[in-house]
Amino acid sequence: MSIGVFDSGIGGLTVLKEIRKVLPNERIYYLGDTARVPYGEKTKELIIGYSKEIVEFLLEKGVNAIVVACNTATALALKELKEIFKVPIIGVIEAGARTAINTTKNRKIGVIGTKATIKSGKYEEEIRHYRIDVEIFQKACPLFVPAVEEGILSGKLVNQIIKTYLDDFKEKIDTLILGCTHYPLLKDAINKLYPDIEIVDPAKETALDLKDILKKEKLLKNDAPNEKVKYYVTDGKEKFKKIGIMFLEENIQKVELIRL
Amino acid sequence: MSIGVFDSGIGGLTVLKEIRKVLPNERIYYLGDTARVPYGEKTKELIIGYSKEIVEFLLEKGVNAIVVACNTATALALKELKEIFKVPIIGVIEAGARTAINTTKNRKIGVIGTKATIKSGKYEEEIRHYRIDVEIFQKACPLFVPAVEEGILSGKLVNQIIKTYLDDFKEKIDTLILGCTHYPLLKDAINKLYPDIEIVDPAKETALDLKDILKKEKLLKNDAPNEKVKYYVTDGKEKFKKIGIMFLEENIQKVELIRL
Repeated sequence: MSIGVFDSGIGGLTVLKEIRKVLPNERIYYLGDTARVPYGEKTKELIIGYSKEIVEFLLEKGVNAIVVACNTATALALKELKEIFKVPIIGVIEAGARTAINTTKNRKIGVIGTKATIKSGKYEEEIRHYRIDVEIFQKACPLFVPAVEEGILSGKLVNQIIKTYLDDFKEKIDTLILGCTHYPLLKDAINKLYPDIEIVDPAKETALDLKDILKKEKLLKNDAPNEKVKYYVTDGKEKFKKIGIMFLEENIQKVELIRL
Repeated sequence: MSIGVFDSGIGGLTVLKEIRKVLPNERIYYLGDTARVPYGEKTKELIIGYSKEIVEFLLEKGVNAIVVACNTATALALKELKEIFKVPIIGVIEAGARTAINTTKNRKIGVIGTKATIKSGKYEEEIRHYRIDVEIFQKACPLFVPAVEEGILSGKLVNQIIKTYLDDFKEKIDTLILGCTHYPLLKDAINKLYPDIEIVDPAKETALDLKDILKKEKLLKNDAPNEKVKYYVTDGKEKFKKIGIMFLEENIQKVELIRL
């Protein structure tokens, strides 16, 4: 019994970190599709195709549940994956939407993410499942991912980037959803610029949702107390290890290169 | 008789534009590998594999010469492509190096490009073919490509990005090679910040080199006076058309989606 977690690349490690906290004794396989990263500006059709290939790979490893630890793949492919595969598959958007609803006081919520995530309107859809009377302000922030991958997390440049995208929001929203798994690394910088805005990172709630589902489906095994996560990438093992530590806050010992 | 031009995506259109100027009456096939863009942080092995697939596709279309209109693919795969395929194949780096040598007065040359291009050391190698006694300053500028694709070509943010990477250079070099086909769109912004630095865009010289080679090999046909370029992409036809105009400075009417 084990859990498969995937992302277009490295960002999903922010979700993996939270899953490890609530489910420390489960076997986990993580796949980062680093050969084809980023997904954020690609078409729905392509992202569905890539996601299917990844889920098939993880199922061959014997996983019993899948976490789509990527907002873009959740937004564009989760519905289709659920239709095709029988194991529980959860994404990051529902948890993020729910947390935002529980956080906001003025019912004005900001959502930031990749172009594909924002264009999909999935966060808006999920938020309105919980409440109709909210105002939602959405914006794609395409420079955030390259800034994070460069390790540009504080200082003049990242502040200028953040302000370019978010200054519009500051008088409006009281809650901001980080709708991309890279963005939690900018949380401190955003918080300093806009201390009155509550920042929602969907990773924590996603991990708790996963635990609930596995419990309900009797898929929790608790049988791998010292098991390390098994990591697979489709390109660039060394880069994954090197940057991964920034996201995971622990060392990645071993990564296997695969071709999809 | 026709010419194949390829890039990881859209940047190669800056090279195509120059080729069209010097060879307006040749048939041209352009392929942008938009499903797998960007190449700039991927491994050599992967980029060679992708480039081979693309050259095979273009050869099936009947092209007699290939232009690798991508600095990263030139840096990492040109040598291997030339060993495998028999048609003339030219990249963008040699022309850029030669132009820089002919431009510099203080023999201090800056080279900027993607991480993979800079790491390859190919510009340095080519520059030193021409002259040993030059100082070469190299830097990867990973935020330039996303800034350009966002259309952030002037203003406070792009100035901050440019200064972050290039302020180190300003007292040193008199010549700067734009070692990535996206960067010509930042030429004006760079020029305003550093008016004393001569900027070299390898595209023009590459196009002239191509003409010379085709002449020498008797491959010039001059038989397609009103032929439009045939465009192929591996994802996102609409985005390619929309952003393409910024690079090509003319409309792209028709794009065909292919899978490699």
